[in-house]
Amino acid sequence: MITPLLEPDTLDVVGLEKLIDHLIHGGVNGLFILGTTGEAPALSYKTRREVIQHTCRHNAERLPVIVGITDTSLTEAVNLARFATDSGAHALVVAMPYYFASSQGELVTYVQHLAAQVPLPLFLYNAPSNVHHVLGLDAVRKLSELPNIAGLKDSGFNMIYFHKLVWLFRDRPDFTLLVGPEELTGEAVLLGGHGGMCGGSNIYPKLYVDLYKAAAAGDLPELNRLHSRIMQISSTVYRVAPEDSSYLRGMKCAVSLKGICRDVMAEPFQAFGPVEREQVRRHMIAAGLLD
Amino acid sequence: MITPLLEPDTLDVVGLEKLIDHLIHGGVNGLFILGTTGEAPALSYKTRREVIQHTCRHNAERLPVIVGITDTSLTEAVNLARFATDSGAHALVVAMPYYFASSQGELVTYVQHLAAQVPLPLFLYNAPSNVHHVLGLDAVRKLSELPNIAGLKDSGFNMIYFHKLVWLFRDRPDFTLLVGPEELTGEAVLLGGHGGMCGGSNIYPKLYVDLYKAAAAGDLPELNRLHSRIMQISSTVYRVAPEDSSYLRGMKCAVSLKGICRDVMAEPFQAFGPVEREQVRRHMIAAGLLD
Amino acid sequence: MITPLLEPDTLDVVGLEKLIDHLIHGGVNGLFILGTTGEAPALSYKTRREVIQHTCRHNAERLPVIVGITDTSLTEAVNLARFATDSGAHALVVAMPYYFASSQGELVTYVQHLAAQVPLPLFLYNAPSNVHHVLGLDAVRKLSELPNIAGLKDSGFNMIYFHKLVWLFRDRPDFTLLVGPEELTGEAVLLGGHGGMCGGSNIYPKLYVDLYKAAAAGDLPELNRLHSRIMQISSTVYRVAPEDSSYLRGMKCAVSLKGICRDVMAEPFQAFGPVEREQVRRHMIAAGLLD
Amino acid sequence: MITPLLEPDTLDVVGLEKLIDHLIHGGVNGLFILGTTGEAPALSYKTRREVIQHTCRHNAERLPVIVGITDTSLTEAVNLARFATDSGAHALVVAMPYYFASSQGELVTYVQHLAAQVPLPLFLYNAPSNVHHVLGLDAVRKLSELPNIAGLKDSGFNMIYFHKLVWLFRDRPDFTLLVGPEELTGEAVLLGGHGGMCGGSNIYPKLYVDLYKAAAAGDLPELNRLHSRIMQISSTVYRVAPEDSSYLRGMKCAVSLKGICRDVMAEPFQAFGPVEREQVRRHMIAAGLLD
Repeated sequence: MITPLLEPDTLDVVGLEKLIDHLIHGGVNGLFILGTTGEAPALSYKTRREVIQHTCRHNAERLPVIVGITDTSLTEAVNLARFATDSGAHALVVAMPYYFASSQGELVTYVQHLAAQVPLPLFLYNAPSNVHHVLGLDAVRKLSELPNIAGLKDSGFNMIYFHKLVWLFRDRPDFTLLVGPEELTGEAVLLGGHGGMCGGSNIYPKLYVDLYKAAAAGDLPELNRLHSRIMQISSTVYRVAPEDSSYLRGMKCAVSLKGICRDVMAEPFQAFGPVEREQVRRHMIAAGLLD
Repeated sequence: MITPLLEPDTLDVVGLEKLIDHLIHGGVNGLFILGTTGEAPALSYKTRREVIQHTCRHNAERLPVIVGITDTSLTEAVNLARFATDSGAHALVVAMPYYFASSQGELVTYVQHLAAQVPLPLFLYNAPSNVHHVLGLDAVRKLSELPNIAGLKDSGFNMIYFHKLVWLFRDRPDFTLLVGPEELTGEAVLLGGHGGMCGGSNIYPKLYVDLYKAAAAGDLPELNRLHSRIMQISSTVYRVAPEDSSYLRGMKCAVSLKGICRDVMAEPFQAFGPVEREQVRRHMIAAGLLD
Repeated sequence: MITPLLEPDTLDVVGLEKLIDHLIHGGVNGLFILGTTGEAPALSYKTRREVIQHTCRHNAERLPVIVGITDTSLTEAVNLARFATDSGAHALVVAMPYYFASSQGELVTYVQHLAAQVPLPLFLYNAPSNVHHVLGLDAVRKLSELPNIAGLKDSGFNMIYFHKLVWLFRDRPDFTLLVGPEELTGEAVLLGGHGGMCGGSNIYPKLYVDLYKAAAAGDLPELNRLHSRIMQISSTVYRVAPEDSSYLRGMKCAVSLKGICRDVMAEPFQAFGPVEREQVRRHMIAAGLLD
Repeated sequence: MITPLLEPDTLDVVGLEKLIDHLIHGGVNGLFILGTTGEAPALSYKTRREVIQHTCRHNAERLPVIVGITDTSLTEAVNLARFATDSGAHALVVAMPYYFASSQGELVTYVQHLAAQVPLPLFLYNAPSNVHHVLGLDAVRKLSELPNIAGLKDSGFNMIYFHKLVWLFRDRPDFTLLVGPEELTGEAVLLGGHGGMCGGSNIYPKLYVDLYKAAAAGDLPELNRLHSRIMQISSTVYRVAPEDSSYLRGMKCAVSLKGICRDVMAEPFQAFGPVEREQVRRHMIAAGLLD
């Protein structure tokens, strides 16, 4: 889930509620808040807590709520985890602490200390382009033995890593393996993964739900049709500006063009101006996302 | 194809002939020599020319022969391309020149100058972990307009890049899109790619041919069975040593355990010692590659 | 300054006071708290505020206090800046927001928005190995025009970047250019820089103060003698363990061997065990840091 | 030394002779051919051999000639080394083999095998931005024990690495430590290094010779004056285009503006057009390099 904002660090509660209803209406199986797409590290703790509180309240147990608690400080991650638990969240996601270069052993110890202090199922999050560490296969195997490590979300863009995890956990169907980028969800599910967390759902959830269903059912013609449309969105809606932030800004702009919330970005990013917005609009029409 | 060697820079002609027959017997659709798996940049030009000559001679037009001409010097790449043409090769593969950091525009100009001087179909080769450049989508589109650019082999490990190419060339079925790592061939073919160049074929070509056929036929249960076995090989046979070279050394060791050729490596690599060799042997038995 | 801790996120107030007196006694010209060496991103906000409060109180205006406010959230950085101002700090240091890959333009806008909201002189902090952005020369020039940007601390390890800044600001003696790693302070000061922030001062401040003085006075024989000793510390005391964290853990261990505070580390790091501690002790004796 | 060219792979023998005389007249202490600045990896072997032959002939033992033999193939590196020896060269320089990611142990073995086959003193070359390996301190120490390893040229841009080498070899004055980028020569010599290989000498050798002399003599005012001018050249003449190649193209353009040779570049680079050339000319006048 993106984080609807009124100001760069002010939650848009009405937008959040509309977004949740939009997602549930679109058929998604869970709500993942405060991840990379949610711009979590760019939000203050006050705002992050509000996102948790309002999501849990408005969701009202319709779907599982999964909360990103990634932080550079173990204490702040634990604090957020406890707040999420008290607010009624169902699971947590944690990427490795960033800023300091750390060895695999240091990362394992960190997660062991963290997991011992959080009361909910915890998903590992491999996000090397953001945290600049890869969580190695040996580290994942070791951490998977902890009682509340529930699985892993891989946003590493390297499907060989993901396939190795599928092979490593071939006898652990309870260890959930999810893929991050929506462009890789199809193949992840076809080849033994359990699902995906698709940012594009914020715009048009049904498309990504249908992709998952087609992959899970092994319906290859339908999957190829949907996958091609997802690649069109990825190649056009998300690529309007030259910056790396184009993905996030394009997605939020598209959600705002769907009338769900505004496209205010958290710092250090800025919403698109009218020229890029018009480009996004045209790309959305071409991809069947807008009339 | 690996390059069978008697000494670090001495071709094993008999081993090469046995390997070619082994591959053809296994059902592969083409022979790709002097790529990364062939350790081409580590071989002298004399040896590279011998590989070309003996492969073309022994193949005797049974299969298309594709020759890697990647070099840091345009002249040497062109020289090798001409030698390959004269020897009867059918196509060429070129990765971007390495050593110097170059802009996308500089890379495009380089390939334009190269393509104009080579008489065979030329495949682009995206190999960022070796040449430290990604060939961007805009560059590929521009180069695809040249008459003898036949397609692209992607060894970038990022399937989003590959899927974007498939979408970009959705109306150009003649522009062949191949994937490099064998671990990604299944999904590449399932989702619109045309095939793969699988190093593991050197050990057991039938497995990779069957994987391709299952993917092309949309036979998902069979594909998953074969893909899982390929991931087992990737997770065990190729991971016996901690170095990055473990993939190449493990593969060549496995080919030698199949009795096809010795596992002499070109510098800077060294063959495995007896301990690692025994580990490879046991992994091969476990994966059904040896009795 | 390192952050003396009783537990991984519990400030050691007595140790902090001893450290401040040790530094002032050693002749340093300012106190820089909550930087990389201070493990700031790994501390909770509560602990960071306590570091600010107790440092300002115990320093009692003896020296300027400079506070690191680097954060992924603009709001939290501003909050910390305001707390520092209210506590009596004299200046601030900010590295670029990390987690998200950002363009130079996005970084400039971020600092502009930040600088407008903080009431103290603000030093830019180039720290690419931690934040994975280089703050480019054009960005620095643009930001230097803001009224409260006081200078830049460079921890980029690339002295060509630093020398280009010295040349760029050759007519702006008021724009203070400091270097981060202590191993580069000598040459920075010899060739036009204004000073250094030397982590080793925590162990033995006089050595680094003397280095600065020798460089500022152009006393090359003395500088070479001191620089060689600093390189000995860097090559031995900081290199006891294979991890990147060896620098921080070695430094904190050395400070504890000087009897100033314990060597408890913030997560994700751990204090050295007895074997490494003994090695640090022996290296300190060899370098004349312990009797 | 740059490589004067008539065509992208055709040596300009007259230009080469003029350049050699220009350098000797400017007071340099040696001639280093076929390095990064000489675009060696982009030249064919035929052209590389011509550079060696004509340089040794025209130099006529006036200065030591040092030849870069860096290659991805050990055999080709040895072949070039033997040709250089037969042509009368005095020493060799080798960077680590590139293309394949290699461990430190693999790099050490490679150099051991290479050194055993070359009959001249061999300098190690740390060039991570080109070959994507850092030659670690332990590897350098091990290789320094070979009889014909004469020293190391560091183009790694990280002076801490260089200072650690100076400290490591503090009792080996015979092990020559040189720095690559001209912008770092001053501090390298001031703090225990033995000299620099300065590409800018191709334009105006006296400036870099004077810098070396000022550093060796400890004349800080003179050194600062010269260093500032070198930084001006680095910040202007070398920064006319946005590409990384701007350094090489700017330098070669400047040499051509001095009337020594043309600025034809080897592929994948191209000479500047008239607009950039005019900018280089104006920057040269501003820096006192042209009247």
